[in-house]
Amino acid sequence: MALVTAPKQDRSRATRQRLLQAAVACLAERGWAGSTVAVVAERAGVSRGAAQHHFPTREDLFTAAVEYVAEERSHALRSLAAKDRREVVAAIVDLYTGPLFRAALHLWVAASDEDQLRSRVTELEARVGRESHRIAVELLGADEAVPGVRETVQGLLDMARGLGLATLLTDDRPRRERVVNQWAALVDEALG
Amino acid sequence: MALVTAPKQDRSRATRQRLLQAAVACLAERGWAGSTVAVVAERAGVSRGAAQHHFPTREDLFTAAVEYVAEERSHALRSLAAKDRREVVAAIVDLYTGPLFRAALHLWVAASDEDQLRSRVTELEARVGRESHRIAVELLGADEAVPGVRETVQGLLDMARGLGLATLLTDDRPRRERVVNQWAALVDEALG
Repeated sequence: MALVTAPKQDRSRATRQRLLQAAVACLAERGWAGSTVAVVAERAGVSRGAAQHHFPTREDLFTAAVEYVAEERSHALRSLAAKDRREVVAAIVDLYTGPLFRAALHLWVAASDEDQLRSRVTELEARVGRESHRIAVELLGADEAVPGVRETVQGLLDMARGLGLATLLTDDRPRRERVVNQWAALVDEALG
Repeated sequence: MALVTAPKQDRSRATRQRLLQAAVACLAERGWAGSTVAVVAERAGVSRGAAQHHFPTREDLFTAAVEYVAEERSHALRSLAAKDRREVVAAIVDLYTGPLFRAALHLWVAASDEDQLRSRVTELEARVGRESHRIAVELLGADEAVPGVRETVQGLLDMARGLGLATLLTDDRPRRERVVNQWAALVDEALG
């Protein structure tokens, strides 16, 4: 029986992942208003029935999608072989640009007006935020027992989020690189 | 004739301001999808015809609204009698929380998906961003001739924007205050 079940589970898992990736891409490109389960199912090449089997509601699909992609990015960040703190800061800032951040931003803004979505996204955001903080502390080799260090790392993550917001409308890369270089130096000094 | 025209102009100006303030409040509370000229006119207690006389399109109304309120806040910030850099940093961060930032955020996200709105909001955002930077440099007494100072101030504004984004879903005040205190100290040291 196990021999029959395993490939079936693999297929189901692959379908789920295709849906999640399509959902994030859809949210980043078309926003919440343009993102429905039907649109995502078509993009993923999955029947609408199969999509609804995995995710009964639109809220299920999009919160799961943002969480899934955030976890994938966290794993990638954790395995980063950064040579120095400047590279770590640049990698953290990169987390907040690109399609994942764009999708999350659309989800946050939609959630701010929709009660049903709001509590789920708030909880998701708190979890993703704690995880990003933990990874940043680890990669920066920061000692949170030292007063101010925790807030230094938090401010850095806030800055990364603000830089991500600035790229929503325009390609901000050259300016962003200069800010990252300067603030990496400030963080390096503050962390000792 | 002038005696007749002046009160008329005053009334027209007052109507315009009521519309602009109602537009920002509406955008902050209901998002782009829930914000139409008709909804704003009703909220402002102005006839729809009068609203359309002032602002022929929805894009006209909402970009003008965000610009108007941003200018009001800039004036308020310029006249700030801050005792030290910590107070300046706190006041700058305050610019990015509250209804104006919330309204602007809704406008940015809507603009990222709508071509017609996008170019106008991008231009508006560049203008508001330059103005905020100028005010921050002035209030902080920062010397931009010194290498790194420009990027320190830019990063501070990015951090303020990221802190604003964090308040979209939850009341983040206690954490924000700790981050502001720590980063005000770091910025103070960096600016000399």
